[in-house]
Amino acid sequence: MSREMIQDIFKRTGAQALFITDPHNMMYISGFRGGEGMVYISPKQQVVITDSRYTEAAGKESSFTVIEENHGHKRTQILRELLAVDGAEIVGYEDKFMRCYEFSRLTNSLPEIQQWLPLDESIDAIRQVKTPEELKLIAKAESIGDAAFSEILKFLKPGVTELETAAELEYQMKLHGAQGFSFNTIAASGIHSSMPHAVPTDKKIENGDFVTMDFGCTYEGYCSDMTRTVVVGKADAKQREIYNIVLEAQMAALGGIHAGLTGAQCDELARSVIRNAGYGDHFGHALGHGVGLYIHEEPRFSPQDSTVMQENMVISVEPGIYVPGFGGVRIEDLIVIKKDGVENLTHSPKNLIEL
Amino acid sequence: MSREMIQDIFKRTGAQALFITDPHNMMYISGFRGGEGMVYISPKQQVVITDSRYTEAAGKESSFTVIEENHGHKRTQILRELLAVDGAEIVGYEDKFMRCYEFSRLTNSLPEIQQWLPLDESIDAIRQVKTPEELKLIAKAESIGDAAFSEILKFLKPGVTELETAAELEYQMKLHGAQGFSFNTIAASGIHSSMPHAVPTDKKIENGDFVTMDFGCTYEGYCSDMTRTVVVGKADAKQREIYNIVLEAQMAALGGIHAGLTGAQCDELARSVIRNAGYGDHFGHALGHGVGLYIHEEPRFSPQDSTVMQENMVISVEPGIYVPGFGGVRIEDLIVIKKDGVENLTHSPKNLIEL
Repeated sequence: MSREMIQDIFKRTGAQALFITDPHNMMYISGFRGGEGMVYISPKQQVVITDSRYTEAAGKESSFTVIEENHGHKRTQILRELLAVDGAEIVGYEDKFMRCYEFSRLTNSLPEIQQWLPLDESIDAIRQVKTPEELKLIAKAESIGDAAFSEILKFLKPGVTELETAAELEYQMKLHGAQGFSFNTIAASGIHSSMPHAVPTDKKIENGDFVTMDFGCTYEGYCSDMTRTVVVGKADAKQREIYNIVLEAQMAALGGIHAGLTGAQCDELARSVIRNAGYGDHFGHALGHGVGLYIHEEPRFSPQDSTVMQENMVISVEPGIYVPGFGGVRIEDLIVIKKDGVENLTHSPKNLIEL
Repeated sequence: MSREMIQDIFKRTGAQALFITDPHNMMYISGFRGGEGMVYISPKQQVVITDSRYTEAAGKESSFTVIEENHGHKRTQILRELLAVDGAEIVGYEDKFMRCYEFSRLTNSLPEIQQWLPLDESIDAIRQVKTPEELKLIAKAESIGDAAFSEILKFLKPGVTELETAAELEYQMKLHGAQGFSFNTIAASGIHSSMPHAVPTDKKIENGDFVTMDFGCTYEGYCSDMTRTVVVGKADAKQREIYNIVLEAQMAALGGIHAGLTGAQCDELARSVIRNAGYGDHFGHALGHGVGLYIHEEPRFSPQDSTVMQENMVISVEPGIYVPGFGGVRIEDLIVIKKDGVENLTHSPKNLIEL
């Protein structure tokens, strides 16, 4: 994070020092990836406090001063010393992340702190607009998803189960460099595909089934996310109708989104297509969500989101139609907001694939 | 959870009602698996509060009353009504789990609550001793690990990477019924095996390498955990020496642990073998940790743990020797503490396997 961004937090909140404990924010601010410990920042000092398991790595990953916490030099004592150097009595903390017991321990052991300022989502808000380095890592993660999708097309056939499909997708992502998964892979076939968050079962894929696959991996801490729906066998008329409406809705959104629109306006680009086709009641979720170090971040493409889109926000575009007892379609790409449009990070085909 | 256990919490803490928000504890207490919402219990009322996505499932999973929270009937209002029925003014909450901002919102919106009692680890403590149903689920999860280990022995050979090995283990666990993973699978070869928490890399396994694999899955919410170390090719004298010391240490622990010993006494059973063999400085971690809904639970087999072991606690037994620049061995089984010994849930072979 740049020095200006940090200065801005101090100015906006009135804090004299910040205690950062969310592992993702610790990494974002300091570069330290270990996740254990705390980042202390003030206008004068930038410090990673962690234990002996991580100090060596922290020294390589972060430009901050690294202080080792141990039995002889406990975290409270380290913080006391840092606060004294700064003469800081007003401290910002991540109330959205910190557990009550940890807060209570800190307030009891550091009575010299006069005021505790909840930071709410100040740090998360900064993370909404991605840096060029972050965009590269997200694009890499998304390309791993593309590679896995290309492999799964050779694997899908009648008789394969949903669980096997999800396992194969995860296996392929790992083989292509995934370091972890953004969420539990969804593979839903036939009528199961009408549930947006279906959990894969041992149901065998049958000829004529929709198969919806929603999957993502992590790469150097950053998440990917994509969804494709295919038909195993030949699509019938209704499957084709639904698929094409969802695709049309997605293309309308991809063609219309740009910096300056609100989340609600972006959502409406796709939602109006689905509504006008008569399926408005079958698209119950938001069009998209921010993606970065967390798989679900602000802002959202949703009817309630008034955030004005800025360049280099990364957001999913995932319209869907879900017909209970019949099946459903979702098509999801990951995009970067640009001044006059979007950059699509997902390159897998999305014509109706019949296997 | 039994009615007696709940009564006991009210008696011990003086609380008139409990707000349970840790998803694992919500499931443990009510049976509800959705994880979203809150469980309210008092001597008179047992309630799951959740939203429309989960109410149907909650009704099937839980014997508690299910109340739907929505825009017209918000959680605060529901809690206010439940508290009024109980005349409750002293409320226990999970300070180890609840975030500061959530606590602050609750205290502000429910001023009728006179006293908030941090429950600390009261609920987690109850979960240490497993019920017969829980033991069955953990045993099932561990058997999935056994099946994956048996498959990986056919897969390992020179040229295969650590990442491929980890991916294959996860794939096999999924195929055998895993619903998720307890943690990121470890597969460390050659000198990498000297790092207890090595992250798999694209390093290829070479002839003569130790390969340490530490992996676990979840089944119906419960975790498994096991580690095996094998040699790809022929073990040399030093590898054989280290392997046999670790195995002897583990067998000593498995033969000596029983209800009534402290965590420290159990740890010492294995640690003394490794110390006497001259490798005391190369076994830096604890002998084991509780396993259940969480992969790491209390109690521990560690030099610092004074917990007296009780029947039907489930704990890992995982001694190791790690020699930087050479390699390492860890052998881990999952056991159930019994009155006169242990029941081993892990059935994979642990003679030195040379592939």
